Amino acid sequence: MARLVLKFGGTSMADPERIAASAAIAAHEAGNGHQIAVVVSAMAGETDRYLSCAQALGGGLGEVETDTALAAGEQAASALMALALKERGLQARSILAWQLPMEADGAAGTARITAINPALLEACLEEGVIPVVAGFQGISPDGRLVTLGRGGTDLSAAAIAAAIGADCDIYTDVDGVFTTDPRIEPSARRVARISHDEMLELAAMGAKVLQTRSVEYAKAKGVALSVKSSFAPPGMSAGTEVVTESALAERRVVSGIAYTRAQARIAVPGLEDSNAAPAGVFAALAEAGVHVDMIVQGRARSGGHNLEFSVDGRDLKAALGALRPFSAVAHETGLAKVSVVGTGLRGRADIARTLYGVLESHAIPVRMVATSEIKISALVDEDGLERAVRALHAAYRLDEA
Amino acid sequence: MARLVLKFGGTSMADPERIAASAAIAAHEAGNGHQIAVVVSAMAGETDRYLSCAQALGGGLGEVETDTALAAGEQAASALMALALKERGLQARSILAWQLPMEADGAAGTARITAINPALLEACLEEGVIPVVAGFQGISPDGRLVTLGRGGTDLSAAAIAAAIGADCDIYTDVDGVFTTDPRIEPSARRVARISHDEMLELAAMGAKVLQTRSVEYAKAKGVALSVKSSFAPPGMSAGTEVVTESALAERRVVSGIAYTRAQARIAVPGLEDSNAAPAGVFAALAEAGVHVDMIVQGRARSGGHNLEFSVDGRDLKAALGALRPFSAVAHETGLAKVSVVGTGLRGRADIARTLYGVLESHAIPVRMVATSEIKISALVDEDGLERAVRALHAAYRLDEA
Repeated sequence: MARLVLKFGGTSMADPERIAASAAIAAHEAGNGHQIAVVVSAMAGETDRYLSCAQALGGGLGEVETDTALAAGEQAASALMALALKERGLQARSILAWQLPMEADGAAGTARITAINPALLEACLEEGVIPVVAGFQGISPDGRLVTLGRGGTDLSAAAIAAAIGADCDIYTDVDGVFTTDPRIEPSARRVARISHDEMLELAAMGAKVLQTRSVEYAKAKGVALSVKSSFAPPGMSAGTEVVTESALAERRVVSGIAYTRAQARIAVPGLEDSNAAPAGVFAALAEAGVHVDMIVQGRARSGGHNLEFSVDGRDLKAALGALRPFSAVAHETGLAKVSVVGTGLRGRADIARTLYGVLESHAIPVRMVATSEIKISALVDEDGLERAVRALHAAYRLDEA
Repeated sequence: MARLVLKFGGTSMADPERIAASAAIAAHEAGNGHQIAVVVSAMAGETDRYLSCAQALGGGLGEVETDTALAAGEQAASALMALALKERGLQARSILAWQLPMEADGAAGTARITAINPALLEACLEEGVIPVVAGFQGISPDGRLVTLGRGGTDLSAAAIAAAIGADCDIYTDVDGVFTTDPRIEPSARRVARISHDEMLELAAMGAKVLQTRSVEYAKAKGVALSVKSSFAPPGMSAGTEVVTESALAERRVVSGIAYTRAQARIAVPGLEDSNAAPAGVFAALAEAGVHVDMIVQGRARSGGHNLEFSVDGRDLKAALGALRPFSAVAHETGLAKVSVVGTGLRGRADIARTLYGVLESHAIPVRMVATSEIKISALVDEDGLERAVRALHAAYRLDEA
């Protein structure tokens, strides 16, 4: 009898009707003979509602009282899902972090799970009771409720799966991971299987299907992850399976085209000819909490270095504030990042050439390029983004099965 | 240094502004040199919102999963109040039932508190940290969250006060208990001091200021209770003090006129001349969960007994269903109950005479009468209710200081 953790996110728990539909999926899997456990997020909008109340009272993210307020949403959701399963004639019970316990470190707002006592879960499974675990939360060493950060319920689900030796199906509102955004390129196809690293790149790049840390966790613990849709009838979502790279039978060079809108470019010219100068720039940005994405460093004609990098548009103001001590800082907005992702990119010399070639033939100027092991990204004008996505999707024949 | 528990109900926690105003009251009391603890209800509307979700999924009151969902509201509220106190520069922390623990029996929806471990509360008070306890909830012997019933946070507050040897101020949206409803009789005055038994009668009769069980608990444990308004500026609500009867210095015969609308009268005629017959009627009603209020039993001219009693209008349908086995059951709606309450009523023979006299002189027919130690109630036509309240308020000179 296989064990299966089903995770339902906020859109799958939006209201009693959606909760009942998600319960029908869980019932279907239980009917397939699986021992199942369910992990839930708060009903859509609940977390934001509590957060705005907390913020109105001076409570920011990373404050343990804010976490206690936010975690209430998952508590209610777990109880409501247990009711929905019972309404279908199944046995079920809600389980809160303190009832396991699910232990976490003390970093409110970004806590990490440190240990899970599986005894209560095992007892439920033994008795044919479906445990419905409240996601997103853990208990800190001093006995407070702490949360795992945005999307943290994915991490809860992966950790519960590891604790009871189960596979993990993440139910969301899309039928898995696609070769690119179907709203931009209608011929985008669902990717049946993808490696953890590809998933990480696609998730981090804006294909916000799975929380990054949950993928890392699943990879480290060997948990088999799938992404499915709770909006398809029970058993009808084919989804995307996240597998180890070696398990990918037939490799494609490229798995998908990801993108991120609203990027900004910042240029810091005339830095001294040493590593200390760029280090100073990045130290100032790190202190301001600004995440720097792509980085290009070049020698200036006048001597010294020019430093260019991209940041998310929402961080631009903070970044410029942090860079006030530096002179002649320039910036530009209205940019977007397009990325080609695939394990097959490893060691291929022709990818950059193809990328430049495709974008050039569509008259889309490349403003900056960055590469990693399994991806290559270009910064382009935002109004050329959709054309770039479509051109690259076609160039790598991602529309072909 | 006196200890004081401050309880804030749903209307005092309605939104961040009201929470901040309630925190200002707590800060004022702390500034007076009191060691304070705070107990909170869910933000107004929260409990009903979760309850309607639970009911949509088949979860009724008295179901442990419904309780887990409902208790989430108080969890969030306690965290938000802790934030509001910190925002004022005070030290504070939220405390959930499982963190104390606050133990309760296993009766979901109507649980009773069985024990409170005060260690965490004492540690907070010692360190100058204001504990903000989530009300309405307890932990059952098998480690589940259970709730204490509507208004249960009053009971939580009284129990916390007993556990740490504190007085208990219940903050609500009215400035204490009044001689009658000021919306009906504008000359109604606040009652400065009232006995527990009077409070019980007034609370049970519709002056829904304090939950009945919290008053019983406070009386049994000797907790000094007051009812105050959180809508007055800090320190400005005089409120009503609930004291032992012997502590009432100058007694008034009557403390207040209470009323309840939407009552129904049911008549079951021609019962056999034994106690078994009425017992069968009440057994059927109890099984259907119908609370019977006033009861009149009389000998019928034809022999046997006639039984008449009143029920809340909302219970009428269930009551008539339960009485289907009995023949010739009649009923009447559009009634209301008016009650004269006061410890001074004990042993006074002239009260019934005065009641009948006053109502007669205002041409309000009395449909049924019932008495207890400290109250006398009359069932009247609902359209005569307001005149009855005003006439009795004047007859007992309750408008005079």
